[in-house]
Amino acid sequence: MDQERIRKQFAFCEEIDKMKQIGRQTYLSDGSRKENDAEHSWHMAVMALLLSEYANEQIDVLRTVSMLLVHDLVEIDAGDTYAYDAEARKTQRQRELAAADRIFRLLPEDQGRMLRGLWDEFEEWETPEARFAHALDNVQPAMLNAASGGKSWVEKGVRLSQVLERNSSTAKGSEALWDYAYQTFLQPNLDAGRIQDDVHETVGRAGDRADDR
Amino acid sequence: MDQERIRKQFAFCEEIDKMKQIGRQTYLSDGSRKENDAEHSWHMAVMALLLSEYANEQIDVLRTVSMLLVHDLVEIDAGDTYAYDAEARKTQRQRELAAADRIFRLLPEDQGRMLRGLWDEFEEWETPEARFAHALDNVQPAMLNAASGGKSWVEKGVRLSQVLERNSSTAKGSEALWDYAYQTFLQPNLDAGRIQDDVHETVGRAGDRADDR
Repeated sequence: MDQERIRKQFAFCEEIDKMKQIGRQTYLSDGSRKENDAEHSWHMAVMALLLSEYANEQIDVLRTVSMLLVHDLVEIDAGDTYAYDAEARKTQRQRELAAADRIFRLLPEDQGRMLRGLWDEFEEWETPEARFAHALDNVQPAMLNAASGGKSWVEKGVRLSQVLERNSSTAKGSEALWDYAYQTFLQPNLDAGRIQDDVHETVGRAGDRADDR
Repeated sequence: MDQERIRKQFAFCEEIDKMKQIGRQTYLSDGSRKENDAEHSWHMAVMALLLSEYANEQIDVLRTVSMLLVHDLVEIDAGDTYAYDAEARKTQRQRELAAADRIFRLLPEDQGRMLRGLWDEFEEWETPEARFAHALDNVQPAMLNAASGGKSWVEKGVRLSQVLERNSSTAKGSEALWDYAYQTFLQPNLDAGRIQDDVHETVGRAGDRADDR
């Protein structure tokens, strides 16, 4: 056995334990606390196994599940960047690239290249697998936010225009999941005012909205 | 779209969020808290992607990863049964069967059957994938226990005979991982007395050990 190889593999497996301490902004369905990256990645991997039939295009399930399992590993160094934090998003790419360089290099070269390739593919949004993975990455928090009574949307004062902009990618991965998520998770929370409707307001408010951007 | 089908799929996806609140006995590598089932399942799925080359037999990686992602779902109802809790293990099978009946039936029939099949396969230990999955299910906590300075072993007063009995299955899935885990994770903790060595003691103690069982 190649001792150096297995040593590197286990050094990586131990390093990624830190994902369990990277907090996200999404509450668990009972609202008791927010989830972490390890939990989120697991949840989406199971969802990919079960929902792949709704991908717009044929996808390789193992590739998609693998991508989802590792897509947030860079956050061990770069932290979670909240979807609606415009300031943090400006430096996100740079922070995550530096993280990818360090973390994937802990592995033997062939496996580091494989995981880095999956992460790059996710970031580039150009394959059916990446598009479907991004769809799930939007639908899973929407499902949890709805389950917790819109807690995170209310706390952050999230507006529909923000949700729609973020989710412009969801339908590219899965029209069916986007339709279901809109009707089931978003619409009731719009109706209840937990997501602020800045899209369907009266014409007179249109000018205010432009200033918000 | 079959609304009843997608509704059931999402009911299941929301139900399994509870895995994030099922505590295990293994500490995170920094010893700060114990991990939960969702985190554990994610960690092992990534490890399966990276360590499949060490399986004794050729394995289907997607099947193994899928099995690991769902192997603990029954604990949503049945709770985590600690590996060295002999009393709880007596009722474990019965509690987990009832849980499997409820949880997998939340899904559309075909997918419920698929996941139930993976769980049954894991429980039956009869395929190369199940044997390898069990190997990882032993190696991952050993890795974390070693990283946290043997905290869980010390707290529970774990004895080497218990570790060896549990791990009799590890080598059946992967001789290489068992050898590595023994040398790297167990031996240093035996040497340091954090795992009680009731196997290599003097002959005069043999009688005491028999009474302990």
